Amino acid sequence: MSKLNYGIAIFPSKEVQDVANSYRMRYDPHYSYIPPHITLKEKFQADKDEIAKIEEELEKISSQVKPFEIEIKKVSSFSPVTNTVYLKVEPNESLQTLSDKMHEGNFPDQREFSFVPHITISQDLSEDEHSDIFGSLQMSSFDLKDQIDRFQLLYQLEDKTWTVYETFKLGR
Amino acid sequence: MSKLNYGIAIFPSKEVQDVANSYRMRYDPHYSYIPPHITLKEKFQADKDEIAKIEEELEKISSQVKPFEIEIKKVSSFSPVTNTVYLKVEPNESLQTLSDKMHEGNFPDQREFSFVPHITISQDLSEDEHSDIFGSLQMSSFDLKDQIDRFQLLYQLEDKTWTVYETFKLGR
Repeated sequence: MSKLNYGIAIFPSKEVQDVANSYRMRYDPHYSYIPPHITLKEKFQADKDEIAKIEEELEKISSQVKPFEIEIKKVSSFSPVTNTVYLKVEPNESLQTLSDKMHEGNFPDQREFSFVPHITISQDLSEDEHSDIFGSLQMSSFDLKDQIDRFQLLYQLEDKTWTVYETFKLGR
Repeated sequence: MSKLNYGIAIFPSKEVQDVANSYRMRYDPHYSYIPPHITLKEKFQADKDEIAKIEEELEKISSQVKPFEIEIKKVSSFSPVTNTVYLKVEPNESLQTLSDKMHEGNFPDQREFSFVPHITISQDLSEDEHSDIFGSLQMSSFDLKDQIDRFQLLYQLEDKTWTVYETFKLGR
């Protein structure tokens, strides 16, 4: 049975997405693949039966976690591991719980890195470009708050763009 | 209270989306704003309270219509009204019902044109480009079938891209 690529993400409010996009449109070649997001679970493969089971799991997980607030105060970078610059989401127990539950039990794949909640605003740039951009953004401070009440399951098309497959509302 | 732009659409299966994207990436300047889709309700504005009511309505509507099949056999064009070329979705009572219900009662806006279910693959091209593309695609025949079991409410960001806000499953 053929498998698709799936991923799980949170889309913050329009306000936060607009801020992220003001950087992404210049600094992120993946800009047009997906709106600004917080990844809860990186790309994984599943066939129809497997994704049906995962949907049930996600239904359960969403009912176990109440809506919560996130805060963004600054920009950070994954350098030297990758040249990814991101809006740092302040440590958050609900985000950690959600992501942890999506890496247990029936879920495929183990984590490559520990979970760092973030919204990417720049990636795949040269070392010099990365230094420039991170250097100038590192000094900026932000005061973004957002109420998170849902997450979404997405699948990937051949052209690498992502389509939302299902929305899961928290605390229902 | 500030208003956002909302829209309601169906995203067909990856298979159908991949076919549409093979044309869109060349012929549609809106390609990166949203994945391939069937619009059920064009862009409208709503504030937080209004959209909460609309969500309730959509919940009802989704429960009243069962999952259904769509078929795509050919390409058509809205010329001379606009230079939009599209995958024609064969007439379908469920699609018509869904769209009709989203233009009644509490829903804002009236329809400008009658509902023609379609997946845009080319738009905003010059008259000559349109003639070329439509001329060459007009002869193609397709044999695409797809099972539709959900539709989605989206909002628009400042950069004109769309983010899915909620998924409504049919017949639940």
